[in-house]
Amino acid sequence: MATTSDRIIRLQHVEVRVPDLELATAYYTEVLGLLETARDERDGAPRVFLKCWDEREHHSVILREAPTHGLDHMSFKLNEAADLDHFTAKLEAAGVPVKRFAARELGPGWGEAIRFDAPSGHLVELTHGTERIGNMLPKTNPPPRPQDLIGIAPPRLDHLFVMAEDVEAFTAFFTELLEFRLTEQILANDGHQLATFLEHSHTPHDIAVITGPNGALHHFAFWMDDWNGIREAADALAYHGVTIDVAPTRHGVTRGYTTYFFDPSGNRNELFTGGYWVDPDFEPITWTEEEMGRAIFYYHRQVNERFFTVHS
Amino acid sequence: MATTSDRIIRLQHVEVRVPDLELATAYYTEVLGLLETARDERDGAPRVFLKCWDEREHHSVILREAPTHGLDHMSFKLNEAADLDHFTAKLEAAGVPVKRFAARELGPGWGEAIRFDAPSGHLVELTHGTERIGNMLPKTNPPPRPQDLIGIAPPRLDHLFVMAEDVEAFTAFFTELLEFRLTEQILANDGHQLATFLEHSHTPHDIAVITGPNGALHHFAFWMDDWNGIREAADALAYHGVTIDVAPTRHGVTRGYTTYFFDPSGNRNELFTGGYWVDPDFEPITWTEEEMGRAIFYYHRQVNERFFTVHS
Amino acid sequence: MATTSDRIIRLQHVEVRVPDLELATAYYTEVLGLLETARDERDGAPRVFLKCWDEREHHSVILREAPTHGLDHMSFKLNEAADLDHFTAKLEAAGVPVKRFAARELGPGWGEAIRFDAPSGHLVELTHGTERIGNMLPKTNPPPRPQDLIGIAPPRLDHLFVMAEDVEAFTAFFTELLEFRLTEQILANDGHQLATFLEHSHTPHDIAVITGPNGALHHFAFWMDDWNGIREAADALAYHGVTIDVAPTRHGVTRGYTTYFFDPSGNRNELFTGGYWVDPDFEPITWTEEEMGRAIFYYHRQVNERFFTVHS
Amino acid sequence: MATTSDRIIRLQHVEVRVPDLELATAYYTEVLGLLETARDERDGAPRVFLKCWDEREHHSVILREAPTHGLDHMSFKLNEAADLDHFTAKLEAAGVPVKRFAARELGPGWGEAIRFDAPSGHLVELTHGTERIGNMLPKTNPPPRPQDLIGIAPPRLDHLFVMAEDVEAFTAFFTELLEFRLTEQILANDGHQLATFLEHSHTPHDIAVITGPNGALHHFAFWMDDWNGIREAADALAYHGVTIDVAPTRHGVTRGYTTYFFDPSGNRNELFTGGYWVDPDFEPITWTEEEMGRAIFYYHRQVNERFFTVHS
Repeated sequence: MATTSDRIIRLQHVEVRVPDLELATAYYTEVLGLLETARDERDGAPRVFLKCWDEREHHSVILREAPTHGLDHMSFKLNEAADLDHFTAKLEAAGVPVKRFAARELGPGWGEAIRFDAPSGHLVELTHGTERIGNMLPKTNPPPRPQDLIGIAPPRLDHLFVMAEDVEAFTAFFTELLEFRLTEQILANDGHQLATFLEHSHTPHDIAVITGPNGALHHFAFWMDDWNGIREAADALAYHGVTIDVAPTRHGVTRGYTTYFFDPSGNRNELFTGGYWVDPDFEPITWTEEEMGRAIFYYHRQVNERFFTVHS
Repeated sequence: MATTSDRIIRLQHVEVRVPDLELATAYYTEVLGLLETARDERDGAPRVFLKCWDEREHHSVILREAPTHGLDHMSFKLNEAADLDHFTAKLEAAGVPVKRFAARELGPGWGEAIRFDAPSGHLVELTHGTERIGNMLPKTNPPPRPQDLIGIAPPRLDHLFVMAEDVEAFTAFFTELLEFRLTEQILANDGHQLATFLEHSHTPHDIAVITGPNGALHHFAFWMDDWNGIREAADALAYHGVTIDVAPTRHGVTRGYTTYFFDPSGNRNELFTGGYWVDPDFEPITWTEEEMGRAIFYYHRQVNERFFTVHS
Repeated sequence: MATTSDRIIRLQHVEVRVPDLELATAYYTEVLGLLETARDERDGAPRVFLKCWDEREHHSVILREAPTHGLDHMSFKLNEAADLDHFTAKLEAAGVPVKRFAARELGPGWGEAIRFDAPSGHLVELTHGTERIGNMLPKTNPPPRPQDLIGIAPPRLDHLFVMAEDVEAFTAFFTELLEFRLTEQILANDGHQLATFLEHSHTPHDIAVITGPNGALHHFAFWMDDWNGIREAADALAYHGVTIDVAPTRHGVTRGYTTYFFDPSGNRNELFTGGYWVDPDFEPITWTEEEMGRAIFYYHRQVNERFFTVHS
Repeated sequence: MATTSDRIIRLQHVEVRVPDLELATAYYTEVLGLLETARDERDGAPRVFLKCWDEREHHSVILREAPTHGLDHMSFKLNEAADLDHFTAKLEAAGVPVKRFAARELGPGWGEAIRFDAPSGHLVELTHGTERIGNMLPKTNPPPRPQDLIGIAPPRLDHLFVMAEDVEAFTAFFTELLEFRLTEQILANDGHQLATFLEHSHTPHDIAVITGPNGALHHFAFWMDDWNGIREAADALAYHGVTIDVAPTRHGVTRGYTTYFFDPSGNRNELFTGGYWVDPDFEPITWTEEEMGRAIFYYHRQVNERFFTVHS
């Protein structure tokens, strides 16, 4: 019997490639304000592990030194260890090869995991048991926020936005095999999906996909608490000379508030807030091709050229 | 096998007693800005059904004419119809009598439901299949918010806060039988629970309970989008002469922003925003009795007398 | 003896040309939320008089039907009637012809006034005694804001931004003869002024000028209370299909928060907030030509083509 | 001839008494985030000079070691040196003894000054020529705010609120001799003034007075940029254990947003924002005695006992 219960909880982490690891680490820790939790070397490439201050687990962003920027893989958090078996069986039944890894096998603090390729060529991981190291607050009588944070300091990773040549195949894979639910879609005039937004966390999206090169990363996003925080972050980005791609504005899709900018390697980052609550029986919202501009940037009603052509 | 998957999604509705139904309806629709969706009469008492603008379902607040104010019952939304059987079996195995109702049997738009008493005497309902009537926006190319809303117009109901003589028994019932998770607790110096905060929706609380008379309602809360919205709402409340119990401030527990006020019948309402994301494996936060003031009202560090003594 | 006391208090009003008077009136009253206070016909052209809700005087924006859009004249409020004589003498001594008008001669509610041309060809008025009709609140026990405002409803007109071929001559005229103070300037690499910002009201600008066609209007701006209000206004503009020129962002010059958009005739409007306090002995801030992008739009560091080429 | 031009620009500084100078200095620099600019000793008492980051002049708060807390004197900034003579003549003609001090005679960075007693016994200073040392930003291509500020860091001092046995005599002195303008007043049922609000800076108040002991200080206030900043400041105050007198709320008088708290010596501080623009011909707003609660705290409609009884 089909169930709508969520075995996937949320986005666990992203691993991204950066040509200059020290420069990227300085940016993510000092400007964006993430915390470095570990370093290792894997497959000959040094890596830096980072987490946001309010995350309890060991890492949410991993930087891997590599010649080009881009996404190494995405990882989603599973509710239970048994969910690894559930998805392995489901994927293999659909002819998708799955590799399994023991806890800590993939790196420090890493959970037990399975990995497989999406139809778009993106490497996808599901994991359970990432080491819990606590957020930066005491568990007894905590203040609402540490007062000594550095930089923008978003509380947590929020979602991931990638590109695929075949958005419909990508979407079917994520909804049917990984049990994501569709919240919004942009449809071409001929009815095919140009972009889709998918969730498990009762928010507008944990992952989204738009038409583009297979395997490409459009951006990954951190949660901010409100519109005012987005503005203060833009002040800090401008002060530090970070290239701001899109100044604070609003999406039509998700209703969210946003600013886009680039890490020193050219990976696009987003700060995101807002959105709405999503029940499992949510009826998806559709945007037409004519209104794509408004769907993406609600105020300007136009998508800048960089949105479609600049990715990593 | 124990599971951490959520069969309960969120708070579905509250039914509250009001001595003057028309006055209460005017307040909830014109000042608070909910929408009236139906009226009926049940057990000889006329009722008004209300929903918030961004809710998709038929009702989230039901007003029932009655000699005194207070809570008739609370209702939580189930993921699937089969969850009605799951909880019926679990409750009956624990010796809790359960009554079952067909869809629409309890009122217009009402889902299939089971009802039972919590140890505190509160009537609890679990329901599935409340009629979906849509929010106030089109499903194609919607703006982020209707522009013609009246009053404060919170997008949705958020949580419920009740009182119980035995907080520990109440908490055990909700965590063990209804599978809620504990996020925060206030402990007396002797170690027993003075208040607990429980969730299924990955937020700090869907229901909370504090030491007090069995069956009492402390408040129910609507979600607001940000701190600025809380302030604008306080302006509207003051303008309309609503009694503001606690002006905009911050909780230590939940980290949330809040304002408390009373409906014309004396039921306490809250506007709430903020909070944090809760994973199912969240380790609870504990507040000590000495810090209860800061736990409740983070800025003043003192709880006003009304907080403990005024309820309905 | 030179004095730094302010005889000019602030911008009193702007009169702008609109080809479709009814369409413009609908926009300014229903979307922007100004109040219509009078209509008349002058020199064969029908006019509509408007004020913002918190302004006490009869008008701050006057719409004049005309074949093309643009600025008819700007008017500044004088402290005292005697200041009319002061400036008349000063202007005539400098060879500037001055015309004088009695109270109500120029239109309903109009103060006593003098008019003259700036070196850029802009018609400038100084006035005293505009009819006071009160804001929309009682003078006894007022709430902080009316609750029944329509549209965006900025509390007041803030400043004016025009274009001139010779920015230095314009600036000298306004500082030497009209006693404005320079707060900021953008200098070309050869040292000449590309843009200047001038004030009497202890804010970053009551009028500003940038290199462009003589007589041109770049925009006029209304005050908003904060960054959140700018965002909510952008929601309303987008909802009503208004062309948003620049979504909410921040200026480097003035530090202010802003959004630009166009009235139905093509006159650019701004909503502005922020800035800083200016003492009369304020030492001006200088922006270099290389940093002009950051001076105008602090986050994007680039000025869109429309900023320089679209005016009225 | 009567003039409405402003010879007084704004509040220049306050000098307050603190029993523990080092503790007070730590609080004002590390929690409130002011900058220490000088130290001296005068009349046997050591003093610390402080300024806010966006103030251009040498000091706005001076702490003087003394056995009890309270106000030593208030000082207002004059437009021109000649205004010292103007007010000396005016005060002496009214029988008020005036003492004159040369620049730097009263302390480091101090302007030329006159001093005299208000009818309430408060020592009042008018000054011109306080040393200008610049704000913390460059004068060429400045960012909108330094990124390395410590603590709350309000940009500037805003106003002062004192107590007087005879509010009407105090008000007459400030309006007739010092040319302040009345913006708002709270009237007793018999028509006499219980509190008045007076300005020169086109804001709701530069100084206010309420019925109480002669010579008493109720509070002095720093400007914050918006309601969100008030909330963030309250987080910082709570984090550092500062006693918050009134959590973020809104005044009816001035329409301003506020939070009150105490420095370690017991002097009440305020963070204030909002308000409205005041023309010199502003018609004062009156609050009745019955509505005093709403006038002071617009949301709670009640003034806490501390408001009237705790002062310094």
